[in-house]
Amino acid sequence: MAEAEAAERRVLVAVDESEESMHALSWCLKNIVSDKFRDTLLLLYVKPPRAMSTALDGTGTRCYTEAYLFSSEVMLAIERYGNEVADCVMQKAKKLCSELADVKVETRMENGDARDVICQMADKLGADLLVMGSHGYGLIKRTFLGSVSNHCAQNAKCPVMIVKKPKSTSNSQ
Amino acid sequence: MAEAEAAERRVLVAVDESEESMHALSWCLKNIVSDKFRDTLLLLYVKPPRAMSTALDGTGTRCYTEAYLFSSEVMLAIERYGNEVADCVMQKAKKLCSELADVKVETRMENGDARDVICQMADKLGADLLVMGSHGYGLIKRTFLGSVSNHCAQNAKCPVMIVKKPKSTSNSQ
Repeated sequence: MAEAEAAERRVLVAVDESEESMHALSWCLKNIVSDKFRDTLLLLYVKPPRAMSTALDGTGTRCYTEAYLFSSEVMLAIERYGNEVADCVMQKAKKLCSELADVKVETRMENGDARDVICQMADKLGADLLVMGSHGYGLIKRTFLGSVSNHCAQNAKCPVMIVKKPKSTSNSQ
Repeated sequence: MAEAEAAERRVLVAVDESEESMHALSWCLKNIVSDKFRDTLLLLYVKPPRAMSTALDGTGTRCYTEAYLFSSEVMLAIERYGNEVADCVMQKAKKLCSELADVKVETRMENGDARDVICQMADKLGADLLVMGSHGYGLIKRTFLGSVSNHCAQNAKCPVMIVKKPKSTSNSQ
């Protein structure tokens, strides 16, 4: 972590389409980002692995996987939808940043298993702090509540802030 | 969490005799405590459950537990040692606070299972944020690395900051 006197921090916030994620970002902007430091906020969105996409033969013909049958058009539509969701999340996150704090913002989109990618990116980007919501990461992972944040809390090399969205409060807090 | 405009926070830091714990406190003082908020730092030390102590018959005679045989004098000596360790940790923590930040400090000592007590106290004391080291809690619990912080990250109602002590840096950071 940067020493206080160095006054420069890189705060990585893992964002996704969940309310918990936006709440965590909002909390971070209100409680962590400070004039005391020249903070850079790194917004990271991790798209699910391209396992299905890579099964395509790239010719537009049908592609047979172990359990499913998809045309490449369907696969492309799924990927396009995924990209739109990612863009939408990033726009929402950047808007929140501009509304709540005067902070430099950088964005990153990656593919892969969120648990591993977040830890790797925290290291690669030289994050001084990782901030994330407590309830899973991404729609698919939502079923494993908390597993991603637990994994990151254990494996990320930097301090990890896990922000739970209070059930009784509004999203704005 | 208190809104930014309310500018008042109660930051609970779980301290123990580990280096990780003091590093977490130090990190919190340098990175969380801010002039922007009228922070109160709540230092919490949790002593192990009194399971053995309560097995004493209170008469000073020998007391038989399932697996061990202790005289009440030995039990009292153990408890006295535990109290001394607790006092020592608190003194060290308060010294660190006075050295690193101009912040109001309150202290609490509790008995019980650290995992449960920390979550309960975070709720009871109205903590806006819980800060703790990543490596267990207390000498006995050290064998279950990270289990206490994981438990608190999942069960505490407030945001939880888990600070890992970097292997390559000094304690002072």
